[in-house]
Amino acid sequence: MRTFRLVIACPDRVGIVAKVSNFLATYNGWITEASHHSDNQNGWFFMRHEIRADSLPFDLAGFRQAFAPIASEFAMEWQVTDSAQKKRVVLMASRESHCLADLLHRWHSNELDCDIPCVISNHDDLRSMVEWHGIAFHHVPVDPQNKQLAFAEVSRLIETSQADVIVLARYMQILPQQLCQAFAKRVINIHHSFLPSFVGAKPYHQASLRGVKLIGATCHYVTEELDAGPIIEQDVARVTHRDSIEEMVRLGKDVEKRVLARGLRLHLEDRVLVHDNKTVLFD
Amino acid sequence: MRTFRLVIACPDRVGIVAKVSNFLATYNGWITEASHHSDNQNGWFFMRHEIRADSLPFDLAGFRQAFAPIASEFAMEWQVTDSAQKKRVVLMASRESHCLADLLHRWHSNELDCDIPCVISNHDDLRSMVEWHGIAFHHVPVDPQNKQLAFAEVSRLIETSQADVIVLARYMQILPQQLCQAFAKRVINIHHSFLPSFVGAKPYHQASLRGVKLIGATCHYVTEELDAGPIIEQDVARVTHRDSIEEMVRLGKDVEKRVLARGLRLHLEDRVLVHDNKTVLFD
Amino acid sequence: MRTFRLVIACPDRVGIVAKVSNFLATYNGWITEASHHSDNQNGWFFMRHEIRADSLPFDLAGFRQAFAPIASEFAMEWQVTDSAQKKRVVLMASRESHCLADLLHRWHSNELDCDIPCVISNHDDLRSMVEWHGIAFHHVPVDPQNKQLAFAEVSRLIETSQADVIVLARYMQILPQQLCQAFAKRVINIHHSFLPSFVGAKPYHQASLRGVKLIGATCHYVTEELDAGPIIEQDVARVTHRDSIEEMVRLGKDVEKRVLARGLRLHLEDRVLVHDNKTVLFD
Amino acid sequence: MRTFRLVIACPDRVGIVAKVSNFLATYNGWITEASHHSDNQNGWFFMRHEIRADSLPFDLAGFRQAFAPIASEFAMEWQVTDSAQKKRVVLMASRESHCLADLLHRWHSNELDCDIPCVISNHDDLRSMVEWHGIAFHHVPVDPQNKQLAFAEVSRLIETSQADVIVLARYMQILPQQLCQAFAKRVINIHHSFLPSFVGAKPYHQASLRGVKLIGATCHYVTEELDAGPIIEQDVARVTHRDSIEEMVRLGKDVEKRVLARGLRLHLEDRVLVHDNKTVLFD
Repeated sequence: MRTFRLVIACPDRVGIVAKVSNFLATYNGWITEASHHSDNQNGWFFMRHEIRADSLPFDLAGFRQAFAPIASEFAMEWQVTDSAQKKRVVLMASRESHCLADLLHRWHSNELDCDIPCVISNHDDLRSMVEWHGIAFHHVPVDPQNKQLAFAEVSRLIETSQADVIVLARYMQILPQQLCQAFAKRVINIHHSFLPSFVGAKPYHQASLRGVKLIGATCHYVTEELDAGPIIEQDVARVTHRDSIEEMVRLGKDVEKRVLARGLRLHLEDRVLVHDNKTVLFD
Repeated sequence: MRTFRLVIACPDRVGIVAKVSNFLATYNGWITEASHHSDNQNGWFFMRHEIRADSLPFDLAGFRQAFAPIASEFAMEWQVTDSAQKKRVVLMASRESHCLADLLHRWHSNELDCDIPCVISNHDDLRSMVEWHGIAFHHVPVDPQNKQLAFAEVSRLIETSQADVIVLARYMQILPQQLCQAFAKRVINIHHSFLPSFVGAKPYHQASLRGVKLIGATCHYVTEELDAGPIIEQDVARVTHRDSIEEMVRLGKDVEKRVLARGLRLHLEDRVLVHDNKTVLFD
Repeated sequence: MRTFRLVIACPDRVGIVAKVSNFLATYNGWITEASHHSDNQNGWFFMRHEIRADSLPFDLAGFRQAFAPIASEFAMEWQVTDSAQKKRVVLMASRESHCLADLLHRWHSNELDCDIPCVISNHDDLRSMVEWHGIAFHHVPVDPQNKQLAFAEVSRLIETSQADVIVLARYMQILPQQLCQAFAKRVINIHHSFLPSFVGAKPYHQASLRGVKLIGATCHYVTEELDAGPIIEQDVARVTHRDSIEEMVRLGKDVEKRVLARGLRLHLEDRVLVHDNKTVLFD
Repeated sequence: MRTFRLVIACPDRVGIVAKVSNFLATYNGWITEASHHSDNQNGWFFMRHEIRADSLPFDLAGFRQAFAPIASEFAMEWQVTDSAQKKRVVLMASRESHCLADLLHRWHSNELDCDIPCVISNHDDLRSMVEWHGIAFHHVPVDPQNKQLAFAEVSRLIETSQADVIVLARYMQILPQQLCQAFAKRVINIHHSFLPSFVGAKPYHQASLRGVKLIGATCHYVTEELDAGPIIEQDVARVTHRDSIEEMVRLGKDVEKRVLARGLRLHLEDRVLVHDNKTVLFD
């Protein structure tokens, strides 16, 4: 069922819901899902509606035009998207295949509603797996002495791909600030620890050293500060003294891939709203 | 913060949200929480609002009068409650103390927003614990040959207590149908298994015999059919071959008490809507 | 590190551990892992050792010969296996790809220590995916009017494959009794519910109808009675009123594949002991 | 059933298990539970046995004498305890009642196998609750200008109580180093975060600020460094954008009390072995 998704964040005050509901009712919009959240601490209001596209008398452009005065009146940050327009997701990976294979299989079995124009990797190992799915694979090696060169090529590929979202599926390289800014709130990373524990490299080694009883993974938007962006989703798995670092890595893979898949899915369905470096999830 | 809670279930159609939102906006109602759900399978719509009481120009009676025409127009099953009017909860227990002690402590530390007029038990064991909390304890033994006598007394106590809710905190007796009907959707039971597995007596023995790897507990409304009422909340705990039935019972207690406490809390805050023997939880 | 795995089940009595430990110490066996369990209810004792193969002065045959008298003295059911001899696993699937893709990826990335001689399916849909992994794919359609024909071919393929284990990765057909018996404790199935809830067909539909708050999956050995064999592993995922049956199916897939992968892994490492239709897991 | 618990940690080498098993078999010791662990990273070996006391021909002193030569031969750190000699646990609390009430109830319903000579608190709030359980309550206010005075009294009370274990059930004060050292590996704290995240004060505020999707609690032994001691047990609970800090505190209480109860139980049953600031749990 094709829907329009109207996503709004604005200062909280009386009458927002009524105004928006009225607008939708005026045009006989059939609301299939509605979610609100008032953040009492910072006085901000969040709202998401899914409306059957065939119940409305206009297309996206018409919707935008009709809704603009209301948005203006309430100083809304807002967007409306069409579920029929699939987001274009560029996947970036390195040598580890678990997250990439998981996302590709979900896409292939129609569980992830997006297009994947290409996969970019700093190693060539996963080419065959990607190409079997009928997806272009670009090998862009990163020379530690000249990262600029590689990232110029990465940027070019992303632009050519007309990407809406970039997913770092265990890419293991830090993206240049310029790219992060150009794709603010649209670069999704999976960190292999329960942030903010074990920021940076080798989190499972850190976890083993500290003797934690649960390991975790964190899906977050990438910002300039390493591993400090808004968290979309997290989960954990139990470990014991019997689990070596290698076992932790293995158990962690399962957590990583399901946390990343959930986070990406939420993003693709326009369910993640960001404010103050935190996320509101309308799931 | 004192709120009015407006809870609605009705056949789904376009315009309900707008109508209700308009109503609230007309009276400058400050919505602190709003939740909707459209059940596409059976065409039913569910909605819950919390509105700051001090933002509205009327009391509960005034609200009811003003809202009645809308409710009528959309054939709503509805209620509006006042968070300041605490529900009166009669607890029923037997010999096992874990659920009762847990609820009493939560109530005592202001975590459960309700009044507890009394505890009724078929055994006298827990009297001292209850009375320490300043709550009346009624010992009503149940003679297997003459249960009617006991339940007449139970009914009398419940009536005298002006109970809104009855909680079977491991009461271990089956309430008479008449009482279940009089308190339809207001008798909450905790069953010590992950329903529908292990209906009836000794579920941990059944679980051990079947060799399950997780045990569970289920909080549900009581209906005439044993253990078949609408489920409010469930949870599980992991068990291994090392766990004897006694260990399962011990581990299960922790699940039972937290599942019951969560379920009761949801009920007290008018977050549970029942339709077709299933629940919608607006948490 | 190559190990021998000594797995024992026998009536419990004093001196078993000492006898076995002495035996291993006599030959300077370096124990890397040891697990015991006394089932006090039925007086049965379970034990598993991993011993570094290079620390022992004999091969498997020599081990068996040397250990036989002890096994006999204590009436042991026992086996010793060599971690270097990979088990041969025949996978059976139907149209749903999630479990098969998951197992193939784990095998491909060296997470599952086994050989996969072939995949057998009653549909041809997953051929390309299987063959990409370099594994033979056999399409054996099952004519409902003449299942015998199909299962004769299945049996032939399994025999030709010299299979040690059969995994029903959502195969959706009931294996003939003869095959179940020939592979007793060696046919692993994934059932898409938290058994014993929702035995049989369409468990997610049953779950939705009952309004449960958690769905689950169960990995078990196949016995003659449908969905009643010894449970190896189970897990659950939370669902809400918002989740349609389709959503439950989607969420359930993630549970199914990780439960099956865990169960198979335990089996491959000789960590599952079966007694009285229950399992002891030495993980 | 009365048991002796033999707990051993020593450098790993061939023959330990055989030696210990032989020793036990020589005296016809009936082993009810046995656990081993070889830490391959640091070459350390851990072992725990429970043996029926009535199967052995000696008491604890006799056991110690008979076993001493073996312990010496393998340079063991070891202890043997008698399940019939209950450990004496001094509980320390402040104003928050949830952990204390939970432990007291478990003790009162015979779920925690220990004696509780007294509760010490820097506030008088929980006196009545403690005394209802028949346990002495000592109010020892802590003057921020003169903490020494208070802790001298605390130390005196602990000594008088002949305490084996000290449990900080949300005591909210830092114990003096001297006391920590005197009770090394015997002071158990519950920290209200998933360590190492959010060390120090107000972890729920830190968690809210960071926007995590799971909150946690950590039960650990107290060492000189704040919140850095060996972790015994951890668990988490899911939170959403709807949960204010107050809600996180409420949800966190349930995690704290069950994590502390589990950790204490493991300690009381001599199931926690400490090495290199990490724990081995034989549960």
